Amino acid sequence: MRFQVKKDVLLDSILNVSRAISTKTPIPALQGILFEVTNDGLYLTGSNTEYSIKTFIPKSEDLQIEKTGSIVIQSRYIVEIVRKTNDEFINFEIVDGFLIKIISSNSEVNLNGINPKEYQKIDFDLKGKPITFTAKEFKTIVEQTTFATSLSENRPLLTGVNFRINGKLLECTATDSYRLSRKRVKLEETIDKSINIVIPSKSLNELAKLFIEDEEKLEMYVFGTKVIFKYGTTLLNSRLLEGTYPDTSKLIPEKFEKVYVVNTQEIFDATDRASLLSSDHVNNIVNLEVKGSKGYLTSNTPEVGRIEEKFSVDNKNNENIKVSFNARYFMDALKALNSLETEISINDEVSPFIIRNVHDDTIVQLILPVRTY
Amino acid sequence: MRFQVKKDVLLDSILNVSRAISTKTPIPALQGILFEVTNDGLYLTGSNTEYSIKTFIPKSEDLQIEKTGSIVIQSRYIVEIVRKTNDEFINFEIVDGFLIKIISSNSEVNLNGINPKEYQKIDFDLKGKPITFTAKEFKTIVEQTTFATSLSENRPLLTGVNFRINGKLLECTATDSYRLSRKRVKLEETIDKSINIVIPSKSLNELAKLFIEDEEKLEMYVFGTKVIFKYGTTLLNSRLLEGTYPDTSKLIPEKFEKVYVVNTQEIFDATDRASLLSSDHVNNIVNLEVKGSKGYLTSNTPEVGRIEEKFSVDNKNNENIKVSFNARYFMDALKALNSLETEISINDEVSPFIIRNVHDDTIVQLILPVRTY
Repeated sequence: MRFQVKKDVLLDSILNVSRAISTKTPIPALQGILFEVTNDGLYLTGSNTEYSIKTFIPKSEDLQIEKTGSIVIQSRYIVEIVRKTNDEFINFEIVDGFLIKIISSNSEVNLNGINPKEYQKIDFDLKGKPITFTAKEFKTIVEQTTFATSLSENRPLLTGVNFRINGKLLECTATDSYRLSRKRVKLEETIDKSINIVIPSKSLNELAKLFIEDEEKLEMYVFGTKVIFKYGTTLLNSRLLEGTYPDTSKLIPEKFEKVYVVNTQEIFDATDRASLLSSDHVNNIVNLEVKGSKGYLTSNTPEVGRIEEKFSVDNKNNENIKVSFNARYFMDALKALNSLETEISINDEVSPFIIRNVHDDTIVQLILPVRTY
Repeated sequence: MRFQVKKDVLLDSILNVSRAISTKTPIPALQGILFEVTNDGLYLTGSNTEYSIKTFIPKSEDLQIEKTGSIVIQSRYIVEIVRKTNDEFINFEIVDGFLIKIISSNSEVNLNGINPKEYQKIDFDLKGKPITFTAKEFKTIVEQTTFATSLSENRPLLTGVNFRINGKLLECTATDSYRLSRKRVKLEETIDKSINIVIPSKSLNELAKLFIEDEEKLEMYVFGTKVIFKYGTTLLNSRLLEGTYPDTSKLIPEKFEKVYVVNTQEIFDATDRASLLSSDHVNNIVNLEVKGSKGYLTSNTPEVGRIEEKFSVDNKNNENIKVSFNARYFMDALKALNSLETEISINDEVSPFIIRNVHDDTIVQLILPVRTY
């Protein structure tokens, strides 16, 4: 293996694949980046047990290939070596077994690499017809759902986002069983077979970080136990979570007695302040009360103090309410809606209530109240 | 106690005094900010066992006082409450014992304060004639010395910077016994009594963070066991470290056999890269070799690899050398010198060598080599 590559191009690529690398893995090869030089160009792969990222730098002025070959190079070292090179180009050469020499004008690094045969086989083959999105469209799905997935491994399925496709309708659902986010997207083309998969939240978040151009195309290839995303010359292969995702379709009530429209920034700030004294508590509970056109958010933290915040409410059905909930969940939901005005629809103080963007019916947020009254 | 204060003015002040507050202190009163309202204005104090910061907001359009009084308010809450207020003005009132009410237009916070009698007495009285600096001048002293102090409490004196004044000459010395930084400053006025004190590094770093205007005056009042700095309306009172600071005057050799002048950025980058493979090791050792006009920085990390960096040297006495040292210390010293060209003066591979700014003889850095050859 011997090649010369433009520093900036290589740095972008290794930063992308290193997103998949955990320095904590006990498998030495997985702490490294797999370099594979073919006559077409340089393939780079980073991997963990959940997802893998593979990217490609084609042979060009930026990449001169003298000899093909492959090796695994420790991610933490190679990222810093490339980042801290002042030269425009860097030369790589395997000199002896798995010893790699990295040369720029005033610098020579000899690094012990790892046998590429020790690197796990990852299948990046793309088969069948993909589902296509723009990067921006998919990023919105990720931002509006992943925050609501569970952080606990008690119910592994809830750590992922459920993607369900029927015909042209994609429904993405995330829940940690205390709150739920549901996003609906109309696909450009009808999908023949219906799809019902759960993608790990972490894979989705890392995928979204690869996006640079809003309008660039993202292709999604669904297989039995994995999904592969293709964005430009980069592929992300994620395992799917096994099991049947709970049916959440009946959780969201269709009718509500009480409907309130509020200014999003105003109620967000009020919630933020009302939860100040308890924000370091696990149960960061605030109480919402509506009386006519006046809204109150209060919190009581024994021995510390009490906060009361006022805000104005457009009380659609002229109904009053008292309800308590986790301030963090409420603020997460408001952020995800990304709307100037928010509609809060409630039946009573114990049933799940929903939060919507007045001008966007593709996204709905549901929160389970906490009984305090 | 009852007053109205402009949010921005109060926020700046409580952020300043909260620099002295540790949330880890077991003394509840020290987790708080002492608010003292007199007919002149509002005094705010934050404190830990090493240093205290007191600042003053005078009665003005920004501060309307209705009733004097004092209370201690939990720092972590009051900072966030003030920061997150959207209003221009905030009202404070003690309503009952040590319950404080904080009111802005849509928000009412009731917070349990602490009896101000539980707050330690701190003497901020200024007596005698101060030593004066500009903020910029003092900040340079801090930046060029504190990094070289010891982090270990084994020899507490070395965790501070030694300030020694004789006549018009101030000499500031910091060392962790492996490297040393010495800064000399010519004072504007002669100081009558000679001064030899050790100021905790942490106090100096926090003091420098208070500075806003480069040209504003900083006054330093030295007492038997403490020092008080006055910057604008803010005072910082720091205890002094007890004991006799080691005499370091003979550590810095006066004559050198080998003198090299190098481009600072070039040798800094070379050291940074040469230490890449060992940067997470305690002994981050690099080897410097000069042969004629060529310089080499190398490092060997068993089982990981080897790096060699080249750079050019103006070899004043045409003498060669091989010497090994801690890369971190060398880079810290180069940064502190803040010079385009750096002069490295060495006698042999086991004696301390020094690093200087070619154009600034007020600052000298000394490093003890490590024996590896």
